[in-house]
Amino acid sequence: MRDKIAVLGGGSWGTALAILLCQKGIDVSIWLRDRDQAEAMMKKRENEKYLPGIELPEELCIVSDISEAVKDRSFIVNAVPTQGVRNVLKDLKGKLKSGATIVNVSKGLEINSLLRISEVVESELGDIDYCMLSGPSHAEEVARCIPTTVVVSSRKRETAEAVQDLFMTPRFRVYTNPDLVGVELGGALKNIIALGAGISDGLGYGDNTKAALMSRGFVEMAKLGRMMGASSSTFSGLSGMGDLIVTCTSMHSRNRRAGILIGEGHSRESVREKIGMAVEGIKTTDAAYELAKKYGVEMPITSEIYSVLYEGGKVEDSMERLMMRNKKNEMEELLDSERASWEK
Amino acid sequence: MRDKIAVLGGGSWGTALAILLCQKGIDVSIWLRDRDQAEAMMKKRENEKYLPGIELPEELCIVSDISEAVKDRSFIVNAVPTQGVRNVLKDLKGKLKSGATIVNVSKGLEINSLLRISEVVESELGDIDYCMLSGPSHAEEVARCIPTTVVVSSRKRETAEAVQDLFMTPRFRVYTNPDLVGVELGGALKNIIALGAGISDGLGYGDNTKAALMSRGFVEMAKLGRMMGASSSTFSGLSGMGDLIVTCTSMHSRNRRAGILIGEGHSRESVREKIGMAVEGIKTTDAAYELAKKYGVEMPITSEIYSVLYEGGKVEDSMERLMMRNKKNEMEELLDSERASWEK
Repeated sequence: MRDKIAVLGGGSWGTALAILLCQKGIDVSIWLRDRDQAEAMMKKRENEKYLPGIELPEELCIVSDISEAVKDRSFIVNAVPTQGVRNVLKDLKGKLKSGATIVNVSKGLEINSLLRISEVVESELGDIDYCMLSGPSHAEEVARCIPTTVVVSSRKRETAEAVQDLFMTPRFRVYTNPDLVGVELGGALKNIIALGAGISDGLGYGDNTKAALMSRGFVEMAKLGRMMGASSSTFSGLSGMGDLIVTCTSMHSRNRRAGILIGEGHSRESVREKIGMAVEGIKTTDAAYELAKKYGVEMPITSEIYSVLYEGGKVEDSMERLMMRNKKNEMEELLDSERASWEK
Repeated sequence: MRDKIAVLGGGSWGTALAILLCQKGIDVSIWLRDRDQAEAMMKKRENEKYLPGIELPEELCIVSDISEAVKDRSFIVNAVPTQGVRNVLKDLKGKLKSGATIVNVSKGLEINSLLRISEVVESELGDIDYCMLSGPSHAEEVARCIPTTVVVSSRKRETAEAVQDLFMTPRFRVYTNPDLVGVELGGALKNIIALGAGISDGLGYGDNTKAALMSRGFVEMAKLGRMMGASSSTFSGLSGMGDLIVTCTSMHSRNRRAGILIGEGHSRESVREKIGMAVEGIKTTDAAYELAKKYGVEMPITSEIYSVLYEGGKVEDSMERLMMRNKKNEMEELLDSERASWEK
């Protein structure tokens, strides 16, 4: 029997994954809340707004009724922006096929609850099979069949391996990883550092500065992650450092572009307007700032970005403070088990 | 008493560091083997060949006699290309001030012996204070006072901290790290992955592909490193991932530019000619390929780059093989102590 999949959300990433699955011969429906956008996509066979220039396969079923979209589908790909996920899940109740698996591809933390998306799913749908697919994967490139690697993580090995098989192609290589907390956090937190990398670019700093922000940003991401139960190794992998790299260095990245505008002196509100799509990192900064307080973790870069975004701090002052912190041993913020040390 | 420092090597990095130290009020001499180049630099007060457009401080003493360069100097900065280091060290014998410290900034492995530079230094100069200064630091940006972070590592804490103090400025932040093997290997091995990243760009692949090569390249770098006694955490730091990022994404990087030419179909020899400076990664690939065999470590990306550079392999075939390897768990190549796993 052919796999049947629904993709929820008609942004660039949902659309690119729907195309990839269609090209594998899978029966795919894609759901867009906005009826006008859905109709325009049906008519033009193109997602003109979010993935222009890419033809949609004839077989892709485009719908704006969520019950119709998920009916009899074994896998539900969630590609809705983080802050909208809970409402969509509420709409799904009682409509899912028994035994269906949620494949989440949205990267963020719910703002007031500070929950990861797996936790949001559990609180709305109870004990359902769930996995997260994440990694360095700009939609624009996946849609053009450019070689890409991602990782899929689930608490259950069988779920992760089933979804690995579902998505794998010669141009889309899928790894598994058992550390769901790490994979979810990596995808969310890297957007904060991407804002920082953009700010550095916007200020006219160099490649050295950006690499410094990314390396030291990575240290604080992993530190918070470990406190929340993730494995350090996951942060060094595709969904951590890999995604951090692509998000901080590519002009495809909305979070980096937002950072550049901030570095050039634009306010948070004007940035949102100019980008026109969800900039996950802005809300994730707020959530991570709260999580750092909750878990007692020092996150100097996150704190400085928070100050710029939410407290009217000046970016130049933040950079100055980061460069002038006390002299450090690179290892001193790691756990004992992870660090090399001089003999006493 | 003012510190007195000699910098050996008049490439871009040696010159940039000599300028930085001069600006701190330190007494600095810079040695160039080539008398004509030294005279041109003295006359123009500019390193026209390797660091054009940057004025040399008046106080910088430029010499082509190595005895004169190192006389009474407490710190000797080695900025000579890796394969030339041993000969320079032979020249230094009996000329160094007692208690002098070698600060190595050259990144590579000696080709036939497969030795790290600390080992080359020990074999030529015996038990001398030694440290490595490394990290994401393009010379062109350091010379323009763009914010930069690096790490300095030594077996002795006091040596590392003395060199940290020596180089630290508000625009050049220096961390210490006790893991000398990790810092030396990170700086050398990242040049191999930078060749790979360049090849991917030369082939016209995307940001996703490059991030994949960097993430999976990182895994094999760290794997070889651990077998050689390094700490995993060091590879996630400034001298590992940080330097990998800057080398793979910046057009300042000779190794990346060399990779682009190879991706476009140029041979190893024609690449060397076109770049005109040492491309450390080409020789490091050879050394790492031998080390991988010696330590029994699987390094798929390094092996494919070796095949392209030294065995006439086709880059497209290599990419195909890398994408089509067996399905993997992202953690399966890590040590047991480092990986998360599903319960049995």
